[in-house]
Amino acid sequence: MANPTAAMLVIGDEILSGRTRDSNMNYLAKELTRVGIDLCEARVVSDDRKAIIKAVKALSAAYDSVFTSGGIGPTHDDITAECIAEAFDTPIGIRDDARALLEAHYARTGAELNDARLRMARIPDGATLIDNPVSTAPGFTIQNVHVMAGVPAVFEAMVSSVLPTLTGGQPLLSQTLRIERGEGEIAGPLAQLAADFADLSIGSYPFQSNGIYGAHIVIRGHDGAQVDAAMTRLSEMFA
Amino acid sequence: MANPTAAMLVIGDEILSGRTRDSNMNYLAKELTRVGIDLCEARVVSDDRKAIIKAVKALSAAYDSVFTSGGIGPTHDDITAECIAEAFDTPIGIRDDARALLEAHYARTGAELNDARLRMARIPDGATLIDNPVSTAPGFTIQNVHVMAGVPAVFEAMVSSVLPTLTGGQPLLSQTLRIERGEGEIAGPLAQLAADFADLSIGSYPFQSNGIYGAHIVIRGHDGAQVDAAMTRLSEMFA
Repeated sequence: MANPTAAMLVIGDEILSGRTRDSNMNYLAKELTRVGIDLCEARVVSDDRKAIIKAVKALSAAYDSVFTSGGIGPTHDDITAECIAEAFDTPIGIRDDARALLEAHYARTGAELNDARLRMARIPDGATLIDNPVSTAPGFTIQNVHVMAGVPAVFEAMVSSVLPTLTGGQPLLSQTLRIERGEGEIAGPLAQLAADFADLSIGSYPFQSNGIYGAHIVIRGHDGAQVDAAMTRLSEMFA
Repeated sequence: MANPTAAMLVIGDEILSGRTRDSNMNYLAKELTRVGIDLCEARVVSDDRKAIIKAVKALSAAYDSVFTSGGIGPTHDDITAECIAEAFDTPIGIRDDARALLEAHYARTGAELNDARLRMARIPDGATLIDNPVSTAPGFTIQNVHVMAGVPAVFEAMVSSVLPTLTGGQPLLSQTLRIERGEGEIAGPLAQLAADFADLSIGSYPFQSNGIYGAHIVIRGHDGAQVDAAMTRLSEMFA
């Protein structure tokens, strides 16, 4: 059976202007690979209502689950929650359980739960909260979309809260061989190997370092015995 | 006048499996910001014909220019060139000028220009070549799509070849203030500032390091005097 599919939506001007380097995509990709969910697509959009709504609708319709990062903080440029509500044509308002979490948190820290902070308790109707053990303000899941923070430590904690609730598939197994020859030299036999093992994904990733040209050949698949067999053939080809 | 718009399409299973961390998006974002082209969206898709073709069509139609990275090497998993040709309904074949570049290169290095390497001379009809000073095999531009390699050194060199051919806009200017207060505390006045300077983009990017909570406030815009004025106000607010 095919694995469940997923997409990621990264929301934030700071990624598209180059100010910030996104690291959440790589983190999520590794975590999903581990539990057997295939990350099929990722998109980055700016803090723009129309762009966010359009992307959420498209990805939610196309994949089994969608993970978003960014735009759920207390400031004016955090518009993700209301865009998600609009994408699903659902009302959004301050919810008691989310407010209670924030009240307890700010009571502990001594800071004031002002209007800006209360925005973080606005949850679309019908959503379930995602636990945030790092800084309390919750994410949420509505239908097949998991809405999480952009700050990497918080994003990662939220992913850990969400993953156990999802049904995974067969973990993707992979083995890598480093070959110190140009890709053009190994491409022919490699294509034959790929054709012989059509159920596997065989990728070639060239590198150049210290004057050495070569490629990492990565063999990926769900059947460990097949991956082993292909790797054995590959090793023999370029021994 | 609004700046030209752009999108990026990153092609490769290795990014979506988490094996490789993409760095080309951040590089391109910074370069485009510098020349006044607004990077509005980025997508990552796997080495899948349908996914590549669909994304190229969508992005080419929606933005002034599109930059792709990955999938133009000599191995069987490099399918970008033929997908681009199909997206534009254009024939693709080995082109004499591209072949001549490769012949000269492999004559110098002493390696054989075999069938696999010749694949890198396959260029869709009507495209113009993008110079590759790092490893010779060219990229190409067809209509508003610039097709480039995924290896960062080559990608960056190709971007340098392409950028001078594009019409830029007003460079996006930005100034940043580091504020060591929680976002929830500064959000109210910040929203007022954003409302007062509606032509500027004002973003708040929270950080936590060594027990200090705060935010970098980034003010971006095309009018330097406005950015200065907003930054002066911001500094006074949180002095």
